[in-house]
Amino acid sequence: MSASREDLARKAEAGTFTAENLGTCIYRCVGYDAFHALASTTWEMDRNLGTAYYPRFMDYLKRVQKEDLSVAGALTEPRGSRSKKTLDWPDPYLSLKVVDKNKEGIVVRGAKINISGAFASHELVVLPQAAHFEGEEDYAVAFAIPADAQGITYVCQYTPFSAERDQADDLEELGNPLFGQRETSMVIFDHVFVPWERVFHCGEVPYSVKFVSRFAKTHRMTCGGTCKVGFMNQIIGAAKLIQEYKGLQKAAHINEELMEMVVHRETGRACGMAAAHRGAEEPEGSGVFLPDELMGNVSKLNICNAFWRVMALAGDIGGGLIVTMPSMKELKNPEVKSYVEEFYSFGSDEPTENIMKVHKLLQNWTSGLHGVGTWHGAGPVMAQKIMLQRVIDYEHEKNLVKRTLKLKE
Amino acid sequence: MSASREDLARKAEAGTFTAENLGTCIYRCVGYDAFHALASTTWEMDRNLGTAYYPRFMDYLKRVQKEDLSVAGALTEPRGSRSKKTLDWPDPYLSLKVVDKNKEGIVVRGAKINISGAFASHELVVLPQAAHFEGEEDYAVAFAIPADAQGITYVCQYTPFSAERDQADDLEELGNPLFGQRETSMVIFDHVFVPWERVFHCGEVPYSVKFVSRFAKTHRMTCGGTCKVGFMNQIIGAAKLIQEYKGLQKAAHINEELMEMVVHRETGRACGMAAAHRGAEEPEGSGVFLPDELMGNVSKLNICNAFWRVMALAGDIGGGLIVTMPSMKELKNPEVKSYVEEFYSFGSDEPTENIMKVHKLLQNWTSGLHGVGTWHGAGPVMAQKIMLQRVIDYEHEKNLVKRTLKLKE
Amino acid sequence: MSASREDLARKAEAGTFTAENLGTCIYRCVGYDAFHALASTTWEMDRNLGTAYYPRFMDYLKRVQKEDLSVAGALTEPRGSRSKKTLDWPDPYLSLKVVDKNKEGIVVRGAKINISGAFASHELVVLPQAAHFEGEEDYAVAFAIPADAQGITYVCQYTPFSAERDQADDLEELGNPLFGQRETSMVIFDHVFVPWERVFHCGEVPYSVKFVSRFAKTHRMTCGGTCKVGFMNQIIGAAKLIQEYKGLQKAAHINEELMEMVVHRETGRACGMAAAHRGAEEPEGSGVFLPDELMGNVSKLNICNAFWRVMALAGDIGGGLIVTMPSMKELKNPEVKSYVEEFYSFGSDEPTENIMKVHKLLQNWTSGLHGVGTWHGAGPVMAQKIMLQRVIDYEHEKNLVKRTLKLKE
Amino acid sequence: MSASREDLARKAEAGTFTAENLGTCIYRCVGYDAFHALASTTWEMDRNLGTAYYPRFMDYLKRVQKEDLSVAGALTEPRGSRSKKTLDWPDPYLSLKVVDKNKEGIVVRGAKINISGAFASHELVVLPQAAHFEGEEDYAVAFAIPADAQGITYVCQYTPFSAERDQADDLEELGNPLFGQRETSMVIFDHVFVPWERVFHCGEVPYSVKFVSRFAKTHRMTCGGTCKVGFMNQIIGAAKLIQEYKGLQKAAHINEELMEMVVHRETGRACGMAAAHRGAEEPEGSGVFLPDELMGNVSKLNICNAFWRVMALAGDIGGGLIVTMPSMKELKNPEVKSYVEEFYSFGSDEPTENIMKVHKLLQNWTSGLHGVGTWHGAGPVMAQKIMLQRVIDYEHEKNLVKRTLKLKE
Repeated sequence: MSASREDLARKAEAGTFTAENLGTCIYRCVGYDAFHALASTTWEMDRNLGTAYYPRFMDYLKRVQKEDLSVAGALTEPRGSRSKKTLDWPDPYLSLKVVDKNKEGIVVRGAKINISGAFASHELVVLPQAAHFEGEEDYAVAFAIPADAQGITYVCQYTPFSAERDQADDLEELGNPLFGQRETSMVIFDHVFVPWERVFHCGEVPYSVKFVSRFAKTHRMTCGGTCKVGFMNQIIGAAKLIQEYKGLQKAAHINEELMEMVVHRETGRACGMAAAHRGAEEPEGSGVFLPDELMGNVSKLNICNAFWRVMALAGDIGGGLIVTMPSMKELKNPEVKSYVEEFYSFGSDEPTENIMKVHKLLQNWTSGLHGVGTWHGAGPVMAQKIMLQRVIDYEHEKNLVKRTLKLKE
Repeated sequence: MSASREDLARKAEAGTFTAENLGTCIYRCVGYDAFHALASTTWEMDRNLGTAYYPRFMDYLKRVQKEDLSVAGALTEPRGSRSKKTLDWPDPYLSLKVVDKNKEGIVVRGAKINISGAFASHELVVLPQAAHFEGEEDYAVAFAIPADAQGITYVCQYTPFSAERDQADDLEELGNPLFGQRETSMVIFDHVFVPWERVFHCGEVPYSVKFVSRFAKTHRMTCGGTCKVGFMNQIIGAAKLIQEYKGLQKAAHINEELMEMVVHRETGRACGMAAAHRGAEEPEGSGVFLPDELMGNVSKLNICNAFWRVMALAGDIGGGLIVTMPSMKELKNPEVKSYVEEFYSFGSDEPTENIMKVHKLLQNWTSGLHGVGTWHGAGPVMAQKIMLQRVIDYEHEKNLVKRTLKLKE
Repeated sequence: MSASREDLARKAEAGTFTAENLGTCIYRCVGYDAFHALASTTWEMDRNLGTAYYPRFMDYLKRVQKEDLSVAGALTEPRGSRSKKTLDWPDPYLSLKVVDKNKEGIVVRGAKINISGAFASHELVVLPQAAHFEGEEDYAVAFAIPADAQGITYVCQYTPFSAERDQADDLEELGNPLFGQRETSMVIFDHVFVPWERVFHCGEVPYSVKFVSRFAKTHRMTCGGTCKVGFMNQIIGAAKLIQEYKGLQKAAHINEELMEMVVHRETGRACGMAAAHRGAEEPEGSGVFLPDELMGNVSKLNICNAFWRVMALAGDIGGGLIVTMPSMKELKNPEVKSYVEEFYSFGSDEPTENIMKVHKLLQNWTSGLHGVGTWHGAGPVMAQKIMLQRVIDYEHEKNLVKRTLKLKE
Repeated sequence: MSASREDLARKAEAGTFTAENLGTCIYRCVGYDAFHALASTTWEMDRNLGTAYYPRFMDYLKRVQKEDLSVAGALTEPRGSRSKKTLDWPDPYLSLKVVDKNKEGIVVRGAKINISGAFASHELVVLPQAAHFEGEEDYAVAFAIPADAQGITYVCQYTPFSAERDQADDLEELGNPLFGQRETSMVIFDHVFVPWERVFHCGEVPYSVKFVSRFAKTHRMTCGGTCKVGFMNQIIGAAKLIQEYKGLQKAAHINEELMEMVVHRETGRACGMAAAHRGAEEPEGSGVFLPDELMGNVSKLNICNAFWRVMALAGDIGGGLIVTMPSMKELKNPEVKSYVEEFYSFGSDEPTENIMKVHKLLQNWTSGLHGVGTWHGAGPVMAQKIMLQRVIDYEHEKNLVKRTLKLKE
């Protein structure tokens, strides 16, 4: 957890480091960012309401650190019609709901969707997805739970990339042979019991929105910002190699495209850095530092668009081969092996296997799940816009104009 | 083949019609556009050089029409280092080459890559990929051949989507259950014999570039333009349905996104129409009408960028579910069926199966091969730019300025 | 007035022709487009309501044609708070209002703002700016009037460019020496009498919106579309000349910028053409052809953004000199004449006077009123978006998806 | 001069502070950034070549600080054909040249163009504009000189805004009544003598490029980055006020536009901050800190495009009135005063004078010299691109890919 701006800056850099080395989701990021929201908001509730959530959470956090537990964070929910309020949905479980409470703990029913790494983590930490209001107390709930607790069911994501892995003879055939694709699941809680010592929010409706927004601003700096800097590095590296394999080092338009990708990357990096450097303790006295709200959202908003553009640019350099290449298996197929080696060589000295693997990596990055995934991870564009409109204040700017023009009062 | 501007306009509209109804490649488009180049250029060679290619080609074309043969077109080649010329590549077969000639015909060796629908067509029609120059006579070749001719080998594209089809129990599980994904292959010609009556270009180097550029301008209007209008209609329809399932009909930002997609679509349609309406007979007297070069290239250039943007917008509306959804198989899995039906329902009356299928369709369009595929089909951005720079003339514009300013001579 | 699609296509082309030859507003365009709205809507009112506006308008139109009168069109009004309705504004005259009616005619008070060429035209033709509703009958008014009618006052636009003209010794010193800057004015109607034979709409509130929207769709094709094609030609010509003066003919990035300008121009042209080619008689039987609503709005929407981009590109090629150049007067100033000639020559053979004049022309285009003017002429972006959302129907697209996926009813 | 990263960060912030308070160029920025280049490069020359420029420059700098002299920096030159080298230009003075040297000093001839604030400063500091090579020793020159030294002539910028100022009865009529428009001039040096104690570079050709590039990277952080943050604040403030005057506070599309402007501003601020925070001592041991090259150029590159976009957005909110409004003089014109007050009031309680002044301010920002000026100040886009391509290294990214894919050596 970040206890200073320097911690935040290191957190921002860590996002890049892990992303560029794994080439996929680190899975611990959502949980880690949820901890920021939990520490900050439980501290505030205890101070304001006299509850005792903060020490409870800190005990939990210490155990996580000591035992090095992998903790997935879970916020997003199925939800009903967006034009109706939670209480008006026909099915009350489209948002996770407390259905029973007793001396030992609470019982919940509902689901969390799109949860990265959930089924493979040791623990889940659950926050509300949205603000809650009077009457919605049963939805104002945050807790931690072992990933294999009774009543939890996982329905895993299944995409063309899942099928490809199932069909592979060898992981080397895949786009990211080292760490694979991001894996998410829907986590169903069907009457799951959570003991009180793991409950960090229960019914205090005005605080639900604080869990969400503090999580969001922390997550947007990293998942929405510097993590994608790391992903872009993989894309840029692959595009650069293909440029060299094809003998296009002097092609001005390719060099321009590579440069444009670097500009998007550095803009993402700068916004992440600035979000950290302008971070602040929140609430004052809590010892928890959070990134700057404005900059965190700017960071993610830029990345949403930049990532699609980087995909398009890398796709241009990679060429049609990215999507038309045959299976890596053909390199072991005696009938066509020699043709594949000859005709995918670009006449270069590079082993054709290398050439094909780099194209396969770019297929993974530009012709799969990353555009939509990057857009929605840490919230889609509209989520940033809503938050930005909340925090932007125009008084300073209006006053500048009034003074320049000596406007009459 | 187009014999008038009206024919071209109908061809442009046909591109939209087939694309929106199939939701994938029609496969006959490249071949059909190659026929435009062949008719025009064989006619011109016969007139200028006294060859007899045109009647030979027309005989072939009539047979194709009469027997309703499906003909794939093949231009793109493996190529060697882009910094060297064809004759300097270490392997002479990185461009398709005539290796023998005799009274009966010619023998070729080489490969064509990224060829849509090749292995499933009746016939292949082969054009050069690029301009050729003195000394490169053996590369200046165009011909037609049955798809199963001796010496031809296909190495098929294999992507995550291929794997998904292999893993499916039922085509209904796929993104486009009706017509599937675009399938391409590398077509290897290893000493393939072509009889003279099917050879339409052989050694006349100054004409290679005419085959290519006439094909390109025809193809860019349709494959690069109005075909994508049809694809966008599928995307727009799916995004609209999801908006309704989620109860977001009044969300201004979603309506704005749908509208932006329509603007991209109509811009594509307008440029395609204009390319047809400004088309011309080429060469004069040949009876062959080709779209306007400038407009055809503008059309494709706009689409290259617009398609990625449409993907991003549809991905926003579709949400994270597009990439995190489970297999359609889970709807038949007794352990989780009821959960899936409950939690992917959006609380709407629509059958969850429908909701999931529409998301699956958008997965196909926004999280797969279409961004890179659309960019490179009919040539990447740089190909349009090169052609545009060739045909743009600034004299009219300079003269306007000189007159407005009464510039001194 | 357009009586066929061919007429519309010629009208679209005429927009380009006049714009590129004048390099400024033709001034007759708004009036001409208002005639389309008047012919169509008076015909419809007469048919539906039994009024006799159409023959009255046609008499007027014939006189205009016969006497070749220049007619400015006037729609835009001062308006009050956009959050209140017309009838709730404290000042009833912020929209033009009928304040008296008698046997001879009507008397109006109010103002029309931003009216191009008003004070220099023979006649003004006035339409409502917006839809009107029950209770707003006095605002539902359209008429024609001589520009010098009693009670009309003009308050003319005054910009830095006006000042520059006032300071000039010679028109040759200005950016567009031939036809100058667009001149607009606020036209105040202070108890202006209009005889009945020149009144074409008076109180029929449901028809006000038809005047506006039919005008808009006609105007967006031309003013919002093909007119700017002509302006872009002036810009492209000037940028090209500067490229040559500087010896930058082989600079790839400059050639790319010129090409991008051409792409924007051709896209604008294509959308204008398509708006004409898809035009239709409206209402059926009226004999009046109007451009396609969807395409007309797409045309203008694209131009809004494209024009700013073209300005930025031309500004890049023109260089800092565009804004830092001295007065053309210095070429006659014996103290500095030789320096100016030496140091603004680019070392080329071109007379420095020519070089400076071309920069001055680009100053006019890129560093003045054209960005904002082009955006708002024929309505700002939001106006197009509102209209687009009104006319777009998604049924066709939804049905395509339903069929592809065999969705359950 | 910056002696630490913290100094650089303060310098970045100072750029914003001065820009937003002046609403125009501070004029001292180029000179100040030139001092960074001079300190760093004279120190390096002395170390490497045994010259004694550094103490000479430091003496000068101390005097500047002590006497609080305003110093304009001058780099840009007329230049000849860009397709030829300096020595091949017909006129040797298109780049500033040493034409004589003696015991007392040097004599130069040539010109510097586009120099902000030159004629109104106490001093000029002159650097080379470009790299120089063997044979070009006479062009490799840097020095300081009083602005009124013998042989110096100023030819001042004259734009429509200059004319407007000349025509004004009262500064209140102008767009920026407080500090006016940026004023530049061409500075002609016709046999100007510079004593040795003010010469900081003379003939050491390999160092010319260092002066230029160190100046550029310093200038791009501020002039190219955080200065424009300040300008954007004036624009945002004016647009916000107009939104309120018009009663459009709840118009979603206006709020979205304001937010987009803020996003561009914050992105600019973040890149400027990051350039400072990643700055470094250069050369090591010199005590001079310069911003990060990569980030400084990214900063300016983003701003080039963002500023035009901000202009377009503000122009949308401001409306046609920005360019069509009459002179502020009309508010004193008894004939039309009451009309102007009535019809430009938006029916609000705000004095019409205030409303008009805010529109006038936006005219200044969106309909004048700022688009082209901002693009070219601190170098146009191509300058950043060239520098970026020089400093970007792809080894790290390539290695990430090689490791992920275990590529064969």
